[in-house]
Amino acid sequence: MAEDRAAAVRRLLDAVRAEGRTALTAPEGKVVADAYGIAVPGEALAADVDAAVAHAARFGGPVVLKIVSPDILHKTDAGGVVVGVEGADAVRDAFHRIVANARAYDADARIEGVQVQELLPKGQEVIIGAVTDPTFGKVVAFGLGGVLVEVLKDVTFRLAPLDTDEAAGMLDSIRAAEVLRGVRGAEPVDRGALAEQISRVSRLVTDFPEIAEVDLNPVIATPEGALAADIRVILAESVPKPRPTYGREQILASMRRLMQPRSIAVIGASNEPGKIGNSVMRNLVDGGFSGQIHPVNPKADDILGIKAYRSVADVPGEVDVAVFAIPAKFVAPALEEVGRKGIPNAVLIPSGFAETGEHALQAEIVAIGERYGVRLLGPNIYGYYSTWQDLCATFCTPYDVKGGVALTSQSGGIGMAILGFARTTRTGVSAIVGLGNKSDLDEDDLLTWFGEDPHTECIAMHLEDLKDGRAFVAAARETVPKKPVVVLKAGRTAAGARAAGSHTGALAGDDAVYDDILRQAGVIRAPGLNDMLEYARALPVLPAPKGDNVVIITGAGGSGVLLSDAVTDNGLSLMEIPQDLDEAFRRFIPPFGAAGNPVDITGGEPPATYEATIRLGLEDPRIHALILGYWHTIVTPPMVFAEVTARVVAEFRERGIEKPVVASLAGDTEVEEACAYLFARGVVAYPYTTEKPVAVLGAKYRWARAAGVLT
Amino acid sequence: MAEDRAAAVRRLLDAVRAEGRTALTAPEGKVVADAYGIAVPGEALAADVDAAVAHAARFGGPVVLKIVSPDILHKTDAGGVVVGVEGADAVRDAFHRIVANARAYDADARIEGVQVQELLPKGQEVIIGAVTDPTFGKVVAFGLGGVLVEVLKDVTFRLAPLDTDEAAGMLDSIRAAEVLRGVRGAEPVDRGALAEQISRVSRLVTDFPEIAEVDLNPVIATPEGALAADIRVILAESVPKPRPTYGREQILASMRRLMQPRSIAVIGASNEPGKIGNSVMRNLVDGGFSGQIHPVNPKADDILGIKAYRSVADVPGEVDVAVFAIPAKFVAPALEEVGRKGIPNAVLIPSGFAETGEHALQAEIVAIGERYGVRLLGPNIYGYYSTWQDLCATFCTPYDVKGGVALTSQSGGIGMAILGFARTTRTGVSAIVGLGNKSDLDEDDLLTWFGEDPHTECIAMHLEDLKDGRAFVAAARETVPKKPVVVLKAGRTAAGARAAGSHTGALAGDDAVYDDILRQAGVIRAPGLNDMLEYARALPVLPAPKGDNVVIITGAGGSGVLLSDAVTDNGLSLMEIPQDLDEAFRRFIPPFGAAGNPVDITGGEPPATYEATIRLGLEDPRIHALILGYWHTIVTPPMVFAEVTARVVAEFRERGIEKPVVASLAGDTEVEEACAYLFARGVVAYPYTTEKPVAVLGAKYRWARAAGVLT
Repeated sequence: MAEDRAAAVRRLLDAVRAEGRTALTAPEGKVVADAYGIAVPGEALAADVDAAVAHAARFGGPVVLKIVSPDILHKTDAGGVVVGVEGADAVRDAFHRIVANARAYDADARIEGVQVQELLPKGQEVIIGAVTDPTFGKVVAFGLGGVLVEVLKDVTFRLAPLDTDEAAGMLDSIRAAEVLRGVRGAEPVDRGALAEQISRVSRLVTDFPEIAEVDLNPVIATPEGALAADIRVILAESVPKPRPTYGREQILASMRRLMQPRSIAVIGASNEPGKIGNSVMRNLVDGGFSGQIHPVNPKADDILGIKAYRSVADVPGEVDVAVFAIPAKFVAPALEEVGRKGIPNAVLIPSGFAETGEHALQAEIVAIGERYGVRLLGPNIYGYYSTWQDLCATFCTPYDVKGGVALTSQSGGIGMAILGFARTTRTGVSAIVGLGNKSDLDEDDLLTWFGEDPHTECIAMHLEDLKDGRAFVAAARETVPKKPVVVLKAGRTAAGARAAGSHTGALAGDDAVYDDILRQAGVIRAPGLNDMLEYARALPVLPAPKGDNVVIITGAGGSGVLLSDAVTDNGLSLMEIPQDLDEAFRRFIPPFGAAGNPVDITGGEPPATYEATIRLGLEDPRIHALILGYWHTIVTPPMVFAEVTARVVAEFRERGIEKPVVASLAGDTEVEEACAYLFARGVVAYPYTTEKPVAVLGAKYRWARAAGVLT
Repeated sequence: MAEDRAAAVRRLLDAVRAEGRTALTAPEGKVVADAYGIAVPGEALAADVDAAVAHAARFGGPVVLKIVSPDILHKTDAGGVVVGVEGADAVRDAFHRIVANARAYDADARIEGVQVQELLPKGQEVIIGAVTDPTFGKVVAFGLGGVLVEVLKDVTFRLAPLDTDEAAGMLDSIRAAEVLRGVRGAEPVDRGALAEQISRVSRLVTDFPEIAEVDLNPVIATPEGALAADIRVILAESVPKPRPTYGREQILASMRRLMQPRSIAVIGASNEPGKIGNSVMRNLVDGGFSGQIHPVNPKADDILGIKAYRSVADVPGEVDVAVFAIPAKFVAPALEEVGRKGIPNAVLIPSGFAETGEHALQAEIVAIGERYGVRLLGPNIYGYYSTWQDLCATFCTPYDVKGGVALTSQSGGIGMAILGFARTTRTGVSAIVGLGNKSDLDEDDLLTWFGEDPHTECIAMHLEDLKDGRAFVAAARETVPKKPVVVLKAGRTAAGARAAGSHTGALAGDDAVYDDILRQAGVIRAPGLNDMLEYARALPVLPAPKGDNVVIITGAGGSGVLLSDAVTDNGLSLMEIPQDLDEAFRRFIPPFGAAGNPVDITGGEPPATYEATIRLGLEDPRIHALILGYWHTIVTPPMVFAEVTARVVAEFRERGIEKPVVASLAGDTEVEEACAYLFARGVVAYPYTTEKPVAVLGAKYRWARAAGVLT
């Protein structure tokens, strides 16, 4: 785009705002469209009826006439549109009719003339638009136009700006994508032209942040191009100013000291059982933290036998973390002391801030934190665990199963569910962090750290909102290629109404935007709390798949059918078994068993049959993942199956052959022990469900694709 | 419809079949449409060009011309359709062009002339059709027409015949239902006219079973009526003959003796551990069955100390059930003896029949069963449990937790999963039945029995197919008003391609039809195995809701948000709390807590706050169901919450106030014990999940609506 065109848009928008308007007129929209090369029909403003006739003659063919008035937003309602007018007489009639209708609609409306517009070609109607999302900022939308899609809400969203390749991806992201590729003999539309228009709209709203919404509705897509019938541009009342941000190295430096501290001060440490300051101290001590613990309490000489200080200022040496276990009203002065002492992290357990309506108190501590460069975790949290440091800075109970999952939660209740679930399933954890009010530190800071943390192999986050959706997406994109990120976004159906001045705005319910953009960021979205917990537990256990070919090996035909259902539900592909492989499987199974996929070894088989078929599944390089269906029989009891399976998987692992193996165990209660045995040995196994093991495998595949491990 | 019109259709179809055709021509279709009052445009067959001009002049306005040839099925492909022809010259041109195109397409095609048809009004395109489903027989379909819906498969199905009220319900069952009610200022279509057309199509296919498929595509729906552009009728190659059926009283008589037997013979009873005939005997004895047990074994005098007989013929007195524990090849002769002895039920554990390709062997035993009136359970099953009789006629292990759930499975593996799940969750069970090959007894027989069985409060069935979908629907409709029926239909995504000669046929994938018709039958469809098991366990625990108003009371704001999501996901409605009730809740919760719905009592509250708010929720008659969100704290530990909740619920139950109460417990592992405690006391509670308790409540609501308990 030429500089002068950008300048033209700048001048135009300034003029519109100077007039106190937020909606552009059609001719103004045309100026913007022309500046960004957004194809719209030839059109011209006719101030009088003779000009209209002249313009129509110049375009040739039928035209559309539309009233132009800054006071009439809904032209059709005002009887201000006539379509398909051809010939001088007809144009003349239509011009007069439109003006008369507009006068009748609003006698005071300022009428600037009538717009004469080329009639659009026939083609597929689509809608292209952009909105300003409160979380993600400028976002573009694409969907099929028309009543049906407005009803079915078949629209997709992306962060703006995006290039034409990314825009082309949007065409495949709607449910009715097939329509654009041409169905029932129709020619496919010009995808390049659509992608170009999407990309240009995305650049427009990025260049001019004061543009709140843009609608191209409809765009007529044909095999030869894409032409917007109409461009609608709405300006924002005001443009929010950007929030202060920290650089990546700054974040890593303070996060390292938070998660791997050598010295911790506990402000409000107490000897009195039942007090939070007592629980935190006991957990630090009982948890086995090997760094220094400094209780701060103006009224005690020691806490749990450890020397206490009157003030954090008195604590000797460098301190990495100050844990606050004092009432909200005392936090600000203590935080000042923490700032002066140069402690980089404050863990604010107390509640009584924004969540109880005390916004001023929260703003005060945020200001103190910013002034001293103290990062704040919380307030209104249970604290945090960093298990590889034996660090339990919470008022809950210690957790000691070290492992690869980092879990975070915005809510304390969910944090407790994480703790209970992890303990009962013996999930290996690297950290559990409460985020609470997120007055400062939030998901992007944690993602940045956990992405680098060598102990962390998978990150699972419960969140209700994001303070800065773009920062989150940036952190996720950095992290996902290294390790899976699972997100439970709560409040997805509360979405509901948002005032919107455009079609795109009306379609952009909170969750629709979150869903598309989280996927774009490569995040695995968990549909519910239990799914998040199971994914977190299981994903680090499974190796990454190296290809799409999933094979089900089952002793129970019934499980095979349900596992196949789950494969389809989770977007996985059952391998079409080549004939040689089919024959190879058949050699191990009874003549009435079914090869193909599922491989049904039938119910009465000994351990050797499970072993031989699993072995073949791991051996053959064309197979990339195994789903096992076990049926409890006397011939192959649960623990025998578990031992055989674990042994074979381990043997191949030693040979350098690692494929994800998941299992569904159907049987009496002994299968529970067998599942635990398998899980601990790298086979994700569940009793009494055919859905969960496949859902986990599906999540692993989604990650592998997002990470580029699998294409 | 006049008798002579039916006779006309009869004559027409017979003539078409006599010619060896299965597809009706357009004029033949018109005869059928007229006979059933299905509105189609005025049309006439023109044998020559002059006749075409005359017909067009008679209709007035533009017309459509279509080639008529029994050899050309796809007219458009053959260039045999021209739309919107007006005036004698244009009609003349179009006639010649169409005939030439048809000749070029197929030089040998017999051309009977050109159909001249009134042009359709503008309106909403819909599709109405009927197909013959292999499971459910005649089924009607309704959806919006056009490319988009064919892509998005937004279609709904019902059993034929149906009346206009039921047909009107179909209009609301598609996702895009809103379109028919008029969106963006469009007028609503004439719903009565559409319902009438659907109902008439349903009667047509019911009256003439040899009609395999009917397509009205498109039907143009306008505010004034509904006109089918085209009717397509395809006849079946052959009409299947109905299977033999038993009457309700016959079924109940034999099922009562199967499920409440006084005397059982075990054919193939054995003293040798590891043999099925030994396991069955041990389970009968160890399970505590108080009726007579008669081992049959030609080589033993006694089995487990019980007198054995050489043949079942030698067993004294009346026998209710013969359990077969002998190899497949010996079943037929033994079944003959069972028949001669007049035993009404044979439980066929052995495999080696249809499932291993031995169809002839299975046909042989079915024939013997029919000859003697012996009902067959299986073959290829684990057996069955009837817990209130202490009856365990299986080779698994006894099950002794008596209760209200009857479970059935088509597959042995799933049966074992049922057993393990039930045992670990201590689910109260009335029966577990394996159905296996379903050579005779199937789900409808069991539904009929369990519907009457006073011990059974809920029925859960795993099935892969139905032998007779209509018999199942009839049994379900009889049973559902009395107790919930949960179905796990496996193989739902395998559906895949079926050869189809019509659009409706192509849209009627197996699962789409199953899904709609199971819902129509009032059955609760479980999305997966674990869901079926959880619904089965939980539904009998909950009382039926008496209204729609669901209230969430939560100690964890985070759980409240997730529980709200689940409420929406499960089609439940969060009550809008009236002001007086809101004030009443506020009196119990801290000032910064949130009333409204969820009622957020906040995390640090004592048991008294949970108690007061739950009490209010049960007391106020405007509230119909409660969802509790518990957050583990020191102030209200898990078991304290559980005891308080159970006590309050019990107190209200004694006062005659019963509302469904479900709970999600977030906390450390003690919440597991608390959940078990609550479950045993009528509160459906789960740890570490916000989804499951609400899914169960949703299932209970779906049942209450299907049963007419709630409207």
